[in-house]
Amino acid sequence: MESKKRTLIRETPDCMGETVRLQGWVDIRRDHGKLVFIDLRDRTGEVQLIILPDNPGAIEAAKDVRSEFLIEVDGLVKERPAKMQNDAVKTGGVEIEVVELRIIAKPETELPIDVSQTDLGVNLDTLLNNRTIALRNVKVRAVFSIYSEVLRSYDEAMRAGEFVEIKTPKILGSATEGGANFFKIKYFDRDAFLAQSPQFYKQAGMSAFERVFEIGTVFRAEPHFTTRHVNEYTGLDAEMGFIDGVTDVMDELERTMKHIFRNVGISCEAELSLYGEAVPGDVEIPRIRLSDAEDILRKEYGKELENHDIDSEGERMICEYVKKEYGSDLVFLTHYPTSLRPFYSMPSPDDALTTETFDLLFRGVEIASGGQRIHDAEMLTGNIRKFGLDPSDFSDYIDIFRYGAPPHGGWGLGSERIVQKMLTLGSIKEAVLYPRDVKRLAP
Amino acid sequence: MESKKRTLIRETPDCMGETVRLQGWVDIRRDHGKLVFIDLRDRTGEVQLIILPDNPGAIEAAKDVRSEFLIEVDGLVKERPAKMQNDAVKTGGVEIEVVELRIIAKPETELPIDVSQTDLGVNLDTLLNNRTIALRNVKVRAVFSIYSEVLRSYDEAMRAGEFVEIKTPKILGSATEGGANFFKIKYFDRDAFLAQSPQFYKQAGMSAFERVFEIGTVFRAEPHFTTRHVNEYTGLDAEMGFIDGVTDVMDELERTMKHIFRNVGISCEAELSLYGEAVPGDVEIPRIRLSDAEDILRKEYGKELENHDIDSEGERMICEYVKKEYGSDLVFLTHYPTSLRPFYSMPSPDDALTTETFDLLFRGVEIASGGQRIHDAEMLTGNIRKFGLDPSDFSDYIDIFRYGAPPHGGWGLGSERIVQKMLTLGSIKEAVLYPRDVKRLAP
Repeated sequence: MESKKRTLIRETPDCMGETVRLQGWVDIRRDHGKLVFIDLRDRTGEVQLIILPDNPGAIEAAKDVRSEFLIEVDGLVKERPAKMQNDAVKTGGVEIEVVELRIIAKPETELPIDVSQTDLGVNLDTLLNNRTIALRNVKVRAVFSIYSEVLRSYDEAMRAGEFVEIKTPKILGSATEGGANFFKIKYFDRDAFLAQSPQFYKQAGMSAFERVFEIGTVFRAEPHFTTRHVNEYTGLDAEMGFIDGVTDVMDELERTMKHIFRNVGISCEAELSLYGEAVPGDVEIPRIRLSDAEDILRKEYGKELENHDIDSEGERMICEYVKKEYGSDLVFLTHYPTSLRPFYSMPSPDDALTTETFDLLFRGVEIASGGQRIHDAEMLTGNIRKFGLDPSDFSDYIDIFRYGAPPHGGWGLGSERIVQKMLTLGSIKEAVLYPRDVKRLAP
Repeated sequence: MESKKRTLIRETPDCMGETVRLQGWVDIRRDHGKLVFIDLRDRTGEVQLIILPDNPGAIEAAKDVRSEFLIEVDGLVKERPAKMQNDAVKTGGVEIEVVELRIIAKPETELPIDVSQTDLGVNLDTLLNNRTIALRNVKVRAVFSIYSEVLRSYDEAMRAGEFVEIKTPKILGSATEGGANFFKIKYFDRDAFLAQSPQFYKQAGMSAFERVFEIGTVFRAEPHFTTRHVNEYTGLDAEMGFIDGVTDVMDELERTMKHIFRNVGISCEAELSLYGEAVPGDVEIPRIRLSDAEDILRKEYGKELENHDIDSEGERMICEYVKKEYGSDLVFLTHYPTSLRPFYSMPSPDDALTTETFDLLFRGVEIASGGQRIHDAEMLTGNIRKFGLDPSDFSDYIDIFRYGAPPHGGWGLGSERIVQKMLTLGSIKEAVLYPRDVKRLAP
């Protein structure tokens, strides 16, 4: 047969009565008497192939075909018989009568996990050890289709808000911003560090562009063993100038989250339904001072916070409370104590012990952290000293403000946590393609 | 005056006769007799402010205002006098009669470089040492406005082609893919490496999603001192399955480049004109076998290639030739010798010494490298051995193909080089916000 362009499965309903060439993966193959049925999938959908007994060439070519073979078929697009129309939605009401079948590639050995079941039914380690194969499973693939849409929607929301996209360095000459959360690297003849946030650089970008955002890798050398931490993730950062206060920042983040949820709800309906999930409703996100949250936790749950800091149990409880009282899956906790926030956090005008900061919680987990930053060089220098740090380690950073910067603020948002909580996945590692933790550096 | 929402400068022509509140940077301040003129800029544009002598409060408030002060003004939007309409395009035909002026922030000291000139006129080191301040300059800012549009357009082109966006790990457990181009990192109690490309992971993603793309950081521990190398950059990667051959990959990259150029041409006309540049015309990109390019270089330029490898001088010459002969700013060089390409490159079916690969050159510089990859596990294992490498170091990678993968290929495209060549910048470092080279890790 002469060379022929491939037709995507999605396009087959428009080719009724024509001969098309399809390429894809065999989902499953079934024999009914002398008939052979094959469910074929490509990136655009799934369709049923039929091999009739009067086509011995195709019968012969198909005799070894099993799940996860990659095949090419030339076939006639036919209307699906009425009695099979119950799954016509999936297949666009068509089936393909095979004329020729060729094997493109096939697994050399049995797949280590059965990807044809909707639910893989393997534990997290098995899933991650076999990540590439697991991606052939419909539910696993759905996670990353949604993830791709989250990235697109964040980008779209930011640009709609006139944020300029920047890319900032991940290799740093010094491990500023304090803490031992930096990975050290050998950089030619000296030591360097991996960025644990684009904080200083996005403030620098803001000081020229007013509004900037970054989608970039964040490295955290934290020896955590939890369901919500990985050591490398993709941060969705933003910084905006000329704000009246931290409320402007929360407004912008709320607009952004709603844009993401709305898009995922529309574009990924099928993927969400595999998990029996829907995106959060379009409800105003409550904003609760952390001190008020502390009162609520005490009254409603008999829970006391240590050092006024909310722990992961407290975060789950306050989300439960907010869902019950306000019908919201998200909540802003605001005005964290100075002792719990970085030195660049703007102190509250009415209370030097609290800051103009917030965390955004989604179904029990913090997904974003943000606030207004100090934009006055003198105040910033004073705060660096108060935190026991040396201003001379921060001269490039302080310079941003020595040359004049507007009142500003921003956030860091974890892309994978959005997906984790949207699908109620047990671990964030299910939402990272190839996650890194203290023990895992492969595949 | 009561609290009032900010009006963006772009919106002022719609507010004729109204009092608005503007916030931004002072570009320049001029005194004409008793009149004070201030050019104010925000992220949306620039407008002239006038302070009349009958407003002593504003005259007083403005007396210290100089370039790069950040100010807020309440003012009346008026039509710009006819004699000044020559610059009416820039200002939308309006000017602002200041009612009140307040200083938001100001440089503590003189700026280290004069950013008010269109051309900064400083050398590369001075530019980069003062990068944050330099961003306030209109031409420097233009580079990154264009860069932001390149990122957006790449994303848009990929999604239009049904590529799924993925994010792959930058910390690797082993430095595979050969070479000494890896930065080593201390990862808790062991050694790890920074990814010098997402090659293996994007092929893994392709094996499930057919088409994937990634916008991510690439780390190269190459001790280069050239105008086109940095040690950390943002790669625009793609990988696509079910190809008929490398031609399909070049077609897709050509479509993508044209999409980027078209968008930048439309969205960034003003930024391009600051550099006296236009985007490349919509000409078919010639595809020349490297061996034919070698003949051309010999005949046209008397240049001989060493080991049939094209050097940077040869790349400049072949681009000059293609521009002259085909009117194209870009050219694909194809069929590189096996010895010059990675072990996973597909050998040409008719010639085992060449590969189904390409480089894409743009105005004298390679901006992308790509090709068809080997998708057969056995052939791949053999090639790994031929390259003197140990297949057992590549077991996760080979597994992708042991379980069946379609014919596929892709590319790695350097985002910053696109912008560098589009604006004919002397060094790629001008197109990187905070570049990293052998010597530079700050700011």
